[in-house]
Amino acid sequence: MRCVTIVENELVLAERETPVPGPLDVVVSVRAAGLNAADLLQRRGFYPAPPGWPVDVPGMELAGLVTAVGEAVHEPLLGRRVCALVGGGAQATHCLVPSEHLLFLPDHVAWSEAGGFAEAFTTAHDALVTQGELAAGERVVISGAAGGVGVAAVQIARALGAEVAAVTRDDAHHAQLRELGADQTITLEEVDALRDVDVVLELIGAAHLERVLPRLARFARVVVIGVGAGSRAEIDLRLVMASRARVTGATLRARGRDEKTVVLERVANTLVPRWRTGEVRVPIARVFDLDQVSEAYAYFAQPGKFGKVVLRVDD
Amino acid sequence: MRCVTIVENELVLAERETPVPGPLDVVVSVRAAGLNAADLLQRRGFYPAPPGWPVDVPGMELAGLVTAVGEAVHEPLLGRRVCALVGGGAQATHCLVPSEHLLFLPDHVAWSEAGGFAEAFTTAHDALVTQGELAAGERVVISGAAGGVGVAAVQIARALGAEVAAVTRDDAHHAQLRELGADQTITLEEVDALRDVDVVLELIGAAHLERVLPRLARFARVVVIGVGAGSRAEIDLRLVMASRARVTGATLRARGRDEKTVVLERVANTLVPRWRTGEVRVPIARVFDLDQVSEAYAYFAQPGKFGKVVLRVDD
Repeated sequence: MRCVTIVENELVLAERETPVPGPLDVVVSVRAAGLNAADLLQRRGFYPAPPGWPVDVPGMELAGLVTAVGEAVHEPLLGRRVCALVGGGAQATHCLVPSEHLLFLPDHVAWSEAGGFAEAFTTAHDALVTQGELAAGERVVISGAAGGVGVAAVQIARALGAEVAAVTRDDAHHAQLRELGADQTITLEEVDALRDVDVVLELIGAAHLERVLPRLARFARVVVIGVGAGSRAEIDLRLVMASRARVTGATLRARGRDEKTVVLERVANTLVPRWRTGEVRVPIARVFDLDQVSEAYAYFAQPGKFGKVVLRVDD
Repeated sequence: MRCVTIVENELVLAERETPVPGPLDVVVSVRAAGLNAADLLQRRGFYPAPPGWPVDVPGMELAGLVTAVGEAVHEPLLGRRVCALVGGGAQATHCLVPSEHLLFLPDHVAWSEAGGFAEAFTTAHDALVTQGELAAGERVVISGAAGGVGVAAVQIARALGAEVAAVTRDDAHHAQLRELGADQTITLEEVDALRDVDVVLELIGAAHLERVLPRLARFARVVVIGVGAGSRAEIDLRLVMASRARVTGATLRARGRDEKTVVLERVANTLVPRWRTGEVRVPIARVFDLDQVSEAYAYFAQPGKFGKVVLRVDD
C-alpha cells in the first residue's frame, strides 16, 4: 500500500505492506481521509499514536470500502461503504480498522465528505452529549466553531434543541455558521456580552476559556477539547465555585477499544440517521490528493478555513 | 438577645430582638458557635449572607437547646440538644434555624465541640462524597488539612476507606493528622511526589491546586472549596484533558433550603452515628467567650491552628 509517513517532522509518501486484519478487524481500502489538529501535533512529535496503531502513519479518520474481513467477524462487511475512527494510519490507501468502529455511509454522501465525518462528529458528540450533558433548551457556546469539530458541534447542538452561540474570528464564517444552525455568531470579544451559558465546548483554549468563565450559568459544564490558542489558562476559582461549574475535557484518541465502540454506537444511532436525511452534513474547506499531503497540512495549519480538510485517496 | 454584629468591618456586641420562629422554623438558645473562613470574608464585606438571613450578624454553625418551635413543626423538638447549619446569625445568644436543618447531638459531646461540627462536617461531606464521589480504596489529597474543614475531611475520607494524604504547612500537625486517620502527612512541596490522585479536596486554593494537577489519576475529581492561598490558578488544560479530570467546586451557604436539607440528611445518616461512637470528633483549636469575639477572629485569621475555633455563648 501507499501511505503518508512522518520522517523527521516531514510528510513523505512511502510503500508499506498492506495490513492483514486481525480476527475482529477489517481492512478498508481508503477513498478519503480527513485532517485533524492532532495530525499537526503528531507531525511535530507531540502526540504519538496510542499503542497498537501505526507509529509513523498519521490519520485518525477515513472513508472507503471494506476489502478484507477478520475471521471472527460474522457481519457481512465485505464491500460495504464505511467511514471510521482509527488511532492512526488513515492517511494511506489501506487501513486496519476494528470492525466495531465502522459507520455505514448514507448512499448520497460523497467520499470526501465521508472522509471528514468520523473524528469530527464523534469528538463533538462525545464532548457535547456525553461529557457536557447538553440538553434541549440550554445555551451552548462553541469556540473555534468554523473548524472541523466546530461545524459538527454546531449542527449536533442545534439538532439537540440547544440555543447555539458560535464563536469565530472570521467575518466570512458568520453566515455559514448560521446556515448550519447557529442562533448567534460572535467574535471572541463579544463573548463578554453572553449570559447564563450552560455548556461551553472549548475548541481553542485559554484565550476563549478565560473570557467565557464569568458568563456561566449555575451548574455549567465546560468541556475542553482543543487548546490551540493556549493551554495555560488563568482561572478564577471563585467563578467555578460561584457557578458550581464543572470543568472537564478529554480527547478520543487514547481511549480503549471498548470505550470507542460505545461512542461510535451513539453516533450511529443518533447522528448517522440525521446525516442520511441531510439534517447534518460535513462542510468541506478543501480537498487535496494524497500526494499533495504537505500542501494539505500547510493549508490546514492556516486560519480562515471553514469545515474539514480532506485527502482524496485513489486506489 | 445579644449578638455579634458587623459595623464598618468591626465586630461589635449588640442587643437585638430575639427571633420568633416561622411556621417551619425553630429558635435555638445558642451555647457555642464555630468560626469559619466565610466569617472573615463577611466581616470585610465580601461575602454577604444569602437572602432571608441576618445581614450583619455573622456565624454559620451553632449548637444549643431548642427553645421555641414553629406552629407547623410536628416533631417534639423543644428542649432538644442540637447543632445546626445556618445562613447567618449563629454568633448570638439565639438563632433562627429551619427545623429540617437540625442535627441531634450525641450525649457525650461537649457544647464547644458541637458548636464546631455542622458547617465543617457538612461542607467536607458534601465536597468529598457528593461532589467528589470519593470511593473506598481511592487516594484523596486534602490541602489545608489542619483547618476546621480539613480535620473533618480527613476523618470522613478515612471512614469511607480512602487512602488519605493530608497537606499541612505546620510540622506540629503531622502527628495530629495521623491520629485522625491520615495515612500520609506532607508539606506543599511534597505534593510533587504524589501519584495517581483520585480526589483533591482543595481548601487553600491556587498555590496547592497548581502543584497537584500534574499528579492526578485518570477520571480524578478536583473539588475547590477554599481559595485563601489564591483564587487565580494557572491551569494547564492539557493536564485536565490527559487525566480526563473534572474540576468543580461549590460552597454550601448560598444553596436553597431544600438542597441543604438533603446535605444535612446525609450527614445525619452517615456521620452523626460515627460521632456518637467516637469514630469522628471535632478537634478544637481554642474556645473564646462571645465578648472576646474580636480576639477570636484575630486568632482564627492566624496560621498554625489545629481544628476549630469556637465561641462559647452563655445564656
